[in-house]
Amino acid sequence: MTVSIVGAGPGDPGLITVKALQLVRDCEVLVYDRLVATELVAQAVGAARISRDGLNQEEVNELLVHHGRRGRRVVRLKGGDPFIFGRGAEEAEALAAAGISYEVVPGVSTLTAVPALAGIPLTSRDVAAQVTVLTGTNADGTELDYDRLAGTPGTLVIFMGLRRLEHIADELILAGRPVGEGAAVISRLSLPDAEVRTATLGTIARAAEGLRSPAVVVIGDVVHALRLREVLAA
Amino acid sequence: MTVSIVGAGPGDPGLITVKALQLVRDCEVLVYDRLVATELVAQAVGAARISRDGLNQEEVNELLVHHGRRGRRVVRLKGGDPFIFGRGAEEAEALAAAGISYEVVPGVSTLTAVPALAGIPLTSRDVAAQVTVLTGTNADGTELDYDRLAGTPGTLVIFMGLRRLEHIADELILAGRPVGEGAAVISRLSLPDAEVRTATLGTIARAAEGLRSPAVVVIGDVVHALRLREVLAA
Repeated sequence: MTVSIVGAGPGDPGLITVKALQLVRDCEVLVYDRLVATELVAQAVGAARISRDGLNQEEVNELLVHHGRRGRRVVRLKGGDPFIFGRGAEEAEALAAAGISYEVVPGVSTLTAVPALAGIPLTSRDVAAQVTVLTGTNADGTELDYDRLAGTPGTLVIFMGLRRLEHIADELILAGRPVGEGAAVISRLSLPDAEVRTATLGTIARAAEGLRSPAVVVIGDVVHALRLREVLAA
Repeated sequence: MTVSIVGAGPGDPGLITVKALQLVRDCEVLVYDRLVATELVAQAVGAARISRDGLNQEEVNELLVHHGRRGRRVVRLKGGDPFIFGRGAEEAEALAAAGISYEVVPGVSTLTAVPALAGIPLTSRDVAAQVTVLTGTNADGTELDYDRLAGTPGTLVIFMGLRRLEHIADELILAGRPVGEGAAVISRLSLPDAEVRTATLGTIARAAEGLRSPAVVVIGDVVHALRLREVLAA
């Protein structure tokens, strides 16, 4: 295996997997996301460490192919999980197209870390039987289908939705989602400066003012249902 | 912190987090799920190791409260992630109600591991912008809302759906989901005997015959779209 596409977890360096940490320690080339903890980058002792910052996706792909072709042990270390909106698939495809062997090592997704660390269960036997996960903007730049989302039962989890939160909340309410439904924004999950704010769909945009990225938005009555949040935050 | 509710990851012992492994090694009481790797259970050297097998949820809760109340370092080690249909919330609530301090350590969910290990991206810029996650049976025993699910855009991921797969597929088709839509069952993900079978919604029940639990069902054209599966399986 020359290239490993690896999830680093949501931010806390302790939330990387054992397998992923071993790969980072043994690699010769590390290509890492801006949001990956510096403690993890530092584990790649002796490796060429390349920040992905300032490179576009095409350039990242080329970098992986370049070093992979030379048979180097390359780790592509990504925040969260590589495939949950992580664009790991594009990198995998570029490697496959170039005939370079690779593996994918899953990580703790921000999605998974929301209930554990913000105390908001995404599903609950009483309140929500399903969860739908999406990004705040469609890849092609078109609007989300708010009518459908308003009619989608259960919890909505929106990645990369903080910047457009006021618009998203307005459109969901216009499309019929209850203005009093629970809503939360979790900023910088698992990091020391993590912050959780809860409100209703009608007030969440104001409540979230000043929060920093990365952030994930949760819409649904699970936000209030179990009161686990207060317990966990204590 | 006396009780830690910890995700062990999808099966491969290397997919536990660094933090979780440390907690397992340091604990005095380990309460573990049947599906957790024996290699991980063996790491709790010197701890009382209690299988959850044969206990009902109420009994598990009582066990955690009992040892937590005595101030022991307890680890509740659960397959996958504790909160993605893992009923970790019920255990957390029982501890909170008893006034016992606890923490939750998220794990790599089976959900996250599907794309990485089975080569099926759950979302794709071209094919599916969102993913909806549910279980094959509602907690209250009622039928799923197939009409709504048929109209839900993007990918469906169904946990604990293997046993009722024929029924679920039939109902989805009756409700209007295309018979030719991609479908996959991933059995024993991340374990040495993992198996992935892909078909269409119309043929998946037959294709999945003989597969063992735990299994996760993916419905959507992402199953075929990127052909990553063949690449990764190679």
